[in-house]
Amino acid sequence: MQIACVLFEGLTALDIVGPYEVLRGLPGADVRFVATAPGEYRTDNGRLALVADQALADVPAPDIVVVPGGRGEAGVRDDPTAIAWLQQAHTTSTWTTSVCTGSLVLGKAGILAGKRATSHWTALEVLRDFGAEPTLERVVFDGKVVTAAGVSAGIDMALRLVAEIAGDEIAQQIQLTIEYDPQPPFAAGSPARAPAAMVAFQRERSRFRQPAT
Amino acid sequence: MQIACVLFEGLTALDIVGPYEVLRGLPGADVRFVATAPGEYRTDNGRLALVADQALADVPAPDIVVVPGGRGEAGVRDDPTAIAWLQQAHTTSTWTTSVCTGSLVLGKAGILAGKRATSHWTALEVLRDFGAEPTLERVVFDGKVVTAAGVSAGIDMALRLVAEIAGDEIAQQIQLTIEYDPQPPFAAGSPARAPAAMVAFQRERSRFRQPAT
Repeated sequence: MQIACVLFEGLTALDIVGPYEVLRGLPGADVRFVATAPGEYRTDNGRLALVADQALADVPAPDIVVVPGGRGEAGVRDDPTAIAWLQQAHTTSTWTTSVCTGSLVLGKAGILAGKRATSHWTALEVLRDFGAEPTLERVVFDGKVVTAAGVSAGIDMALRLVAEIAGDEIAQQIQLTIEYDPQPPFAAGSPARAPAAMVAFQRERSRFRQPAT
Repeated sequence: MQIACVLFEGLTALDIVGPYEVLRGLPGADVRFVATAPGEYRTDNGRLALVADQALADVPAPDIVVVPGGRGEAGVRDDPTAIAWLQQAHTTSTWTTSVCTGSLVLGKAGILAGKRATSHWTALEVLRDFGAEPTLERVVFDGKVVTAAGVSAGIDMALRLVAEIAGDEIAQQIQLTIEYDPQPPFAAGSPARAPAAMVAFQRERSRFRQPAT
């Protein structure tokens, strides 16, 4: 089972490393880190580079596609090569997935039209531009398209995907291997649970338009 | 605040990317990915390379040290350069931390003697070899030494560390930014909660010795 993990300049590292660390445990997993061209791609703050071993063109028909988010997603949306690859890959994929604002890239490729989808909570409204129905859930399955909410949600998405593909027991084995028994110190991880002033503050600072209040 | 994220061949990517994605949000965070020599370091399955921009010697006195785990930790324990750097860095660090089997590296450097510490659950017994008290908790603070359990536990550790350093509100802001509102699909993320047969299976396959039953 070939799994294409897409990299680009300005990605958020955890968006892709979370799903990678889970999906690699699928029986027969063949993970490929890909980008427009092979090479090093830096995260949104420039402090970490991840390496794409292959070009998108080298991996034309993966079984699973994972598109992360991060500030650099805007550049991917404007890259005809990346969008054309994604459109083509989606025609043969078993699962096309995104984490965080990676869903905006799926949207630009036309993959979310008429579908329920999620994104980083600050970017949800933008999904409407692509004909999607913004859905404030952590993981959204709609047919073979699976979108996860912000950053850390890719771990939950990938575990659910493994359960769909290989069954609950394999997913549980992986969960035990990565010791995923989360104990967040605060209940601040979603706009529904974080203090209202904090949510408002992050909405104001967001580069995305926010819903009318 | 300088934060040294240590890389090595055969690391587990999520061990270091989880804390990185949290600690980068500290006010004044200056994150450096470091290794014995600058360059690309591959994960334990060889499918992803992360880039160290600097050598350990270039970052001799970080405020925070983060040592990840993964199969490659055995090589780090046998690397006198890495161990000497860690011992020296620990003399001036504000916090010396590890995720997963990264604690075995701290142990080899003599940093855990007489301390409570944790590790990946399959590696806990090995901590005794370094004079540490194995502690089956997700995050263990003992003075300035902070150890996290397996892989995904680094996210929880880093959030607690941010709260200690910069206060609860900053930690909550970061938690909201990475949308860390975990919804694991199963209750299988710790040996205490996973099915007993699954725990036994993973103990049998472990490269580490297991406690007498």
